[in-house]
Amino acid sequence: MQPAHDDAIRVAVSTVIFSLRSGDDGDVLTIPLVRRTREPHRGQWAVPGGWLATDEDLRDAASRTLAETTGLSPSWLEQLYTFGEIDRSPGRVVSIVYWALLRSDLVEAQRSAAGAPENVEWFAVDDLPDLAFDHRLLVDYAIWRLRNKVGYSRIAAGLLPDEFTLAELRAVYETVLGRRLDPSNFRRLIEGSEALVPTDAFRTGAHRPARLFRWDAEVELADRGPVGHG
Amino acid sequence: MQPAHDDAIRVAVSTVIFSLRSGDDGDVLTIPLVRRTREPHRGQWAVPGGWLATDEDLRDAASRTLAETTGLSPSWLEQLYTFGEIDRSPGRVVSIVYWALLRSDLVEAQRSAAGAPENVEWFAVDDLPDLAFDHRLLVDYAIWRLRNKVGYSRIAAGLLPDEFTLAELRAVYETVLGRRLDPSNFRRLIEGSEALVPTDAFRTGAHRPARLFRWDAEVELADRGPVGHG
Repeated sequence: MQPAHDDAIRVAVSTVIFSLRSGDDGDVLTIPLVRRTREPHRGQWAVPGGWLATDEDLRDAASRTLAETTGLSPSWLEQLYTFGEIDRSPGRVVSIVYWALLRSDLVEAQRSAAGAPENVEWFAVDDLPDLAFDHRLLVDYAIWRLRNKVGYSRIAAGLLPDEFTLAELRAVYETVLGRRLDPSNFRRLIEGSEALVPTDAFRTGAHRPARLFRWDAEVELADRGPVGHG
Repeated sequence: MQPAHDDAIRVAVSTVIFSLRSGDDGDVLTIPLVRRTREPHRGQWAVPGGWLATDEDLRDAASRTLAETTGLSPSWLEQLYTFGEIDRSPGRVVSIVYWALLRSDLVEAQRSAAGAPENVEWFAVDDLPDLAFDHRLLVDYAIWRLRNKVGYSRIAAGLLPDEFTLAELRAVYETVLGRRLDPSNFRRLIEGSEALVPTDAFRTGAHRPARLFRWDAEVELADRGPVGHG
């Protein structure tokens, strides 16, 4: 039996957007949330998103809401999961969820230049407010995917500027994974990956100068598989 | 700018269903396809699926088309990806795709008992006919996911009966991965996983008796993450 198609199903696209913010105790992983101005869940915080337009590819819809929320282009954008439980919203809404990484230096620059749009605020992922709908599950799933992926790809570089020290890169891994890593093991592992290119520049400051590295631009941040950029 | 919602977007759920078939040169990985009886692409083969019903969860829709196609319940069912390119169908259709594993012994028993429904035929994945829409991409992506997952979980057990010899398990890995594995390395690796439970039974036949194993039922075939069975 083939149930009839029902026009009452609506399609939304939402994006969980990660960046880092420097804090007193090191970096924290943050996401922007949008305060809802309409029912249902008016006044509550939600993951940025909107209805899919008929003439818009899924990925384009994700990029659009990302740009509307942050004014920026992501260093990584990938489909996460589609949430479609019957009772997740008063009407039947299927949400195709993407996740994205933004370079922290770009977010900082944008913040001081233009400020975030009204109703948008960045939150540390381990200190989130109550979220509308099932958006807490969306965020938890995105964090899980990010943590997993950090373990087997160089995706963490998507949170960093073009050039970075090994200590800065390790700090990103530590922030995402939520645990300390042994500096010399980390150095061995990363240098062994052969995707890291040393530059002639050094970071100077309070400590002894540290060499700056960049990633080999020929190597993708992670394997996208057959769907490529879809 | 928030584009208006357009009711012209329709939501389908499709499932790429894997099982094994014994062949002259060992097992082959197979999937069922459905011959389309309607335009567009009438007469072409397609991945089983249908429209999402308003009162039906995504996973239930995937289970339903799987049961309609094979008469069976899967040992593994997981959301794969959502395909939504504008031009993938004459009307705008967003397809939420699942992938599933069926135990080969159940497929064989079902085949000889009732026969497959009309319009359904099983094909070896490396000898597929031309597929309707973008379904070749759906299948390729599902194969890619299965191969990846075999590398870091015990998902391959979903293709086997409850009890199996180490040689049978290795044959499944070899079929999915498309390459030979060293028997003693494989034995060491699998036995080290501690999820394999030896039984008191043996497979007897042309060769010397081989002990039968089963998986520890307490251990999931793979980590589902925060979305659980959604």
